[in-house]
Amino acid sequence: MDRRILNTQTLFRTQAIFVRGVSMLALIAIVATVAFCSNGTLKADEGMWLLNNLPVDYLKNTHGFTPDQKWSQHLMKSCVRFNVGGSASFVSSNGLVLTNHHVGSDTLYKLSTKENNYVKEGFLARTPAEELKAPDLELNQLIQISDVTEKVNQAVTSDLPAAEAAVARRARIGEIESAATEESGLRSDVVTLYGGGKYHLYQYKKYTDVRLVWAPEAAIAFFGGDADNFEYPRFNLDACIFRVYENDKPATIKHFFKWSDDGPAEDELVFVAGNPGRTSRIFTTDALRHQRDVRIPWSLDYIRRREILLQQFALEGPEQDRIARDQLFGFQNARKAYMGELQGLQDPALIGGKAAAEQRLLNEVKSNPSLKDHAAAWQVIADVQKRKLAQLREKLSLRTDLFEIAETLVQMAAEDQKPSPRRLARFQDSGRDSLKQKLFSTAPIYKNLEQVLLGDLIARTCEIRGADDPLCQKILDGKSPLERAAEMIGGTKLDDPEVRKEIAAGGAAAIAGSQDPLIRLAVAVDEKLRADQKISEEIAEIERQAYARIADALFRTQGTSVYPDATFTMRLAFGPVKGYQVGGKSIRAFTDVAGTFAHELNHAGQKDFVLPESWKQAKDKIPGSTKMNFVCTADIIGGNSGSPVVNQELELVGLIFDGNIQSLTADYVYNDKQGRAVSVHSNAIRDSLRYVYDARFLADQLGK
Amino acid sequence: MDRRILNTQTLFRTQAIFVRGVSMLALIAIVATVAFCSNGTLKADEGMWLLNNLPVDYLKNTHGFTPDQKWSQHLMKSCVRFNVGGSASFVSSNGLVLTNHHVGSDTLYKLSTKENNYVKEGFLARTPAEELKAPDLELNQLIQISDVTEKVNQAVTSDLPAAEAAVARRARIGEIESAATEESGLRSDVVTLYGGGKYHLYQYKKYTDVRLVWAPEAAIAFFGGDADNFEYPRFNLDACIFRVYENDKPATIKHFFKWSDDGPAEDELVFVAGNPGRTSRIFTTDALRHQRDVRIPWSLDYIRRREILLQQFALEGPEQDRIARDQLFGFQNARKAYMGELQGLQDPALIGGKAAAEQRLLNEVKSNPSLKDHAAAWQVIADVQKRKLAQLREKLSLRTDLFEIAETLVQMAAEDQKPSPRRLARFQDSGRDSLKQKLFSTAPIYKNLEQVLLGDLIARTCEIRGADDPLCQKILDGKSPLERAAEMIGGTKLDDPEVRKEIAAGGAAAIAGSQDPLIRLAVAVDEKLRADQKISEEIAEIERQAYARIADALFRTQGTSVYPDATFTMRLAFGPVKGYQVGGKSIRAFTDVAGTFAHELNHAGQKDFVLPESWKQAKDKIPGSTKMNFVCTADIIGGNSGSPVVNQELELVGLIFDGNIQSLTADYVYNDKQGRAVSVHSNAIRDSLRYVYDARFLADQLGK
Repeated sequence: MDRRILNTQTLFRTQAIFVRGVSMLALIAIVATVAFCSNGTLKADEGMWLLNNLPVDYLKNTHGFTPDQKWSQHLMKSCVRFNVGGSASFVSSNGLVLTNHHVGSDTLYKLSTKENNYVKEGFLARTPAEELKAPDLELNQLIQISDVTEKVNQAVTSDLPAAEAAVARRARIGEIESAATEESGLRSDVVTLYGGGKYHLYQYKKYTDVRLVWAPEAAIAFFGGDADNFEYPRFNLDACIFRVYENDKPATIKHFFKWSDDGPAEDELVFVAGNPGRTSRIFTTDALRHQRDVRIPWSLDYIRRREILLQQFALEGPEQDRIARDQLFGFQNARKAYMGELQGLQDPALIGGKAAAEQRLLNEVKSNPSLKDHAAAWQVIADVQKRKLAQLREKLSLRTDLFEIAETLVQMAAEDQKPSPRRLARFQDSGRDSLKQKLFSTAPIYKNLEQVLLGDLIARTCEIRGADDPLCQKILDGKSPLERAAEMIGGTKLDDPEVRKEIAAGGAAAIAGSQDPLIRLAVAVDEKLRADQKISEEIAEIERQAYARIADALFRTQGTSVYPDATFTMRLAFGPVKGYQVGGKSIRAFTDVAGTFAHELNHAGQKDFVLPESWKQAKDKIPGSTKMNFVCTADIIGGNSGSPVVNQELELVGLIFDGNIQSLTADYVYNDKQGRAVSVHSNAIRDSLRYVYDARFLADQLGK
Repeated sequence: MDRRILNTQTLFRTQAIFVRGVSMLALIAIVATVAFCSNGTLKADEGMWLLNNLPVDYLKNTHGFTPDQKWSQHLMKSCVRFNVGGSASFVSSNGLVLTNHHVGSDTLYKLSTKENNYVKEGFLARTPAEELKAPDLELNQLIQISDVTEKVNQAVTSDLPAAEAAVARRARIGEIESAATEESGLRSDVVTLYGGGKYHLYQYKKYTDVRLVWAPEAAIAFFGGDADNFEYPRFNLDACIFRVYENDKPATIKHFFKWSDDGPAEDELVFVAGNPGRTSRIFTTDALRHQRDVRIPWSLDYIRRREILLQQFALEGPEQDRIARDQLFGFQNARKAYMGELQGLQDPALIGGKAAAEQRLLNEVKSNPSLKDHAAAWQVIADVQKRKLAQLREKLSLRTDLFEIAETLVQMAAEDQKPSPRRLARFQDSGRDSLKQKLFSTAPIYKNLEQVLLGDLIARTCEIRGADDPLCQKILDGKSPLERAAEMIGGTKLDDPEVRKEIAAGGAAAIAGSQDPLIRLAVAVDEKLRADQKISEEIAEIERQAYARIADALFRTQGTSVYPDATFTMRLAFGPVKGYQVGGKSIRAFTDVAGTFAHELNHAGQKDFVLPESWKQAKDKIPGSTKMNFVCTADIIGGNSGSPVVNQELELVGLIFDGNIQSLTADYVYNDKQGRAVSVHSNAIRDSLRYVYDARFLADQLGK
């Protein structure tokens, strides 16, 4: 499942890899969000388009379809972003929200206990009263987009050194966001697009009272497990349903998708609206080599380490298995995704193709008197890669749930003494509500798992820096990594949200006076964490300025009708429903329920290929011809999980949950020869509610 | 299970991690075999003693037992070394050999097919005719030891640079071995002891017709799986029985162990005779820091990578699972062992204690006019660690079964053109029979697994060196790592032993004329592999010379009654059968059959905690009071797996199969407070043959 990339500015301390993992593993790339397609010649239906800049001419000329303002507005407002890192949509007037099981699983996990494992067993509320409130979920509905490029750039003069430019830009963005929030009451985020070529203000209506309505069992949501992940044909019911509330009542929703009667036909053009997390298509070949030879191998070492650690923890017993499962799945998923990316980059054809296009562009730039200064930008990018390697090793990471809480409390107390625009981005006023929702979440924290994770992170820090390094000595305090973790996790009270509230309310004095061992650790390493962040920001600013020049060169040589790289903000992709060929074998576009039962049979005795009891019992009730999954050529990536797939009439026909293995290089190149987006078919959701889960009442609400 | 370290000079291409894994991961440390206890003050029953230099006075004074010449000769000749990396013993006059299931599993794996999975299902031959011949097993029985220190050292004058000294020493050792083999007909190995302070010639009778008699199911041999590995209390029947043949008949054995009637009593002194693989107790603190901060983390990254890769391969189906299982177990085991080592090294108390002893010794050395030149040795060791870090990254490794075959054929053809003593060690005449037995083994090679492993090794090489590196380009030949591996493994015919024989017989001309893609690859990288080996030898020589001076300083300040570090040659350890305390809780020395069934019940529903059908059916037959496993304080390490545990009367009372988790720092320090050697009780073997496996005929042969 394509959950690699999820990151939002105010997001922290949510569960899975995509947050803890990616904020650690992928943030350098994310911070350096450079955005924009480097290859002026689009392939077929390539593109993750801005909602305020759709490729109207292309759609008209190629597909005979012209989206108007009303169409795109309805589409935009029917979509929902899950801030844990996924996409979703409204599917009823009474607040039903459809997303993937693997996007909702963060909440399923937080709602589960030793006695009720909703991730594994599924859940169904037969009345609104039975719906379960998520402890810390924030959903965002995009309301409007405006261009603030000029305002942002005015803050940065060309003579500022990169470090200062980064601070000035951050402050200006903070001012814009605060003013917009104050004026509108909406969540207001300034988004960097086209590698700094554009800055847009995205304003969202927030929903923070979100309740679980239905989730199937993990055994059908993730049927085939790690083995089938990223494969096709697939047979997964990777779906679940929430409901948003306002004033303790189901919210009344104006913009939602109708439910298609039959889903899409083969070759039908469909649209995917969601929040792709990150692409790197503008990357220069030097930046790609850094990814290939340094960044991804480094990340994979970390991912495999964590995967084994969690497996070992899960071996201790069934309850440990339950506690570790969600994170473990996240790491397995990330490992498979990164492996696919790396294998793509190691194919000489990929970088070779990029290099040829780059050389053509460079030749044009150098031979054009008004552009030739831009050529230096490529060298800037090449040079900064070396700093990134050093920074990978240098950067301190102790991120567990509890340490992140401590770090947030410590930094918040210090940052709040400054005016909002001068603070680190996540502590500015505009994001405070979202921050508090996470920080004071009542989601359970498991100290046994926390101890294992913190112990390993301290050990890893010692391995990377050498255990005699002064920072390590400071962290270890004369003990071994495992002893130190046991002592700190044993002693901290930060697992109690009331304790957090008290410390937060007490500000700097409460921090100074706290004897909590994790608060003391966060204070001890605060200087180091801030220094790391400063270097990250400086590198990001250098890249932003260089890529802005590369983007400008592209605009001026190849026209402006291009899409920016993904930034976990709303985009539209599209393409026909279409099978493909692998090794001379045809892979059909659709799978069905009969095939699902056959798939179980074909993998008899294999773990993760056992259908849940509910499906076995419904075998004679649910039609075997009900479509299960399908593929289309739409250009998606991690973060798109949970995206609605709709037809031209804006009826929901599917639910994105994965890309196939051939699409895993989508971070760098779009490929519609074999690369495919994989969706749950709308009929599978409707019919399983009707025939498997005895929830016709819920099926009847879909699209109404 | 303590199988970390297994390596012999002529050993290659056997299956498990200990060979492929360790020859890649641990060879640097092994090549640098520095041997000798750095701390003159022995703790309690510390020590892995040479059979020709037993601590007679200590045994007499502390335990009131005086081993005589007859005793030690009978002990020595009753023991057997498994060249795949374990220990064993003769237990009957008609050739029965007892070792661990996990030592025999290499052969069980090679004998298994899709239809007959002996690793999983076990095996029993009811008649000699049913015994299964191992395709490439070599067992060694130590016959005599002689001191050749002077002969070896005469070859190396003090003015020789390290690289030349290494070559001269290797040549001299080759001459000694060849002459001894020729004269005696015995396998003759010169062993470096006390870090180069001593060289002993070990002469072995070889058994190469070895047949499988009995093995239990993996479910009881490895009951509790990865979760219970290195834990105690334990309940494992980690045993299997082979028989050696001569002239196609069961060999008549003069020296074998009698079988004890009741096994050992609590607190009884027992003896462990076997082949501990490697310890590093002489290491200076700089060398320990290298282990802690560089070497072990590097190895663990590799191990985790391979572990995940094999897990993924096994997910593809039941047959793939069978094929991958043996290697997977090896890597899981190594990972857990290295983790324990690393955690020990990261405890400041360990290196702190070593540093204090080192400082005391250094002070003595510096204040003694006849020794003060020796102080420079510590600096030499410190300096050479930096080269080891560079070499870790620099060294090429493409070792899969098939690539190793290709590499061996290529190097053998070239080396055979030189006189034997000038060849690389493993191609000298004295080891040729052993080399051929491995090279022409009929053990199956699975191309699907080979392809995955080679693809990953090529990818890893690209990650480490950068894919644009000239050596990578040479290996890749314009393709991606996975494509290249598919092409080469698909095209090679080296999986056929007849093809190997033909190429080997054809010598250099056959290599030059071969179009086999793996032969061509081995030729292409031969220069690099030889350069790597040269650097390894040079580093080893530098360390040998420096540690020899440190050893000399120790001898001269603290006396000579010390044992050398382990070198996978025969040693005697001893200590009482004794429980221990953990966190205020008493761990009893013995477990029993009733506890085994209870252990299954306590872990109901957990993978690897399900007893095999045979045990369930025998529950009412085998006495619940039969002892299952026990612990003693003997000083052991990886390589000791399969060692006989005997009493003063030289009756077999147990079978070493593991160390507990508290013993995992034994590479660096002995610890008898909590560290324990874990054995299968002799009664468990006898009674399970009688009552579970319906093999009273075999039980009746034990000790007779």
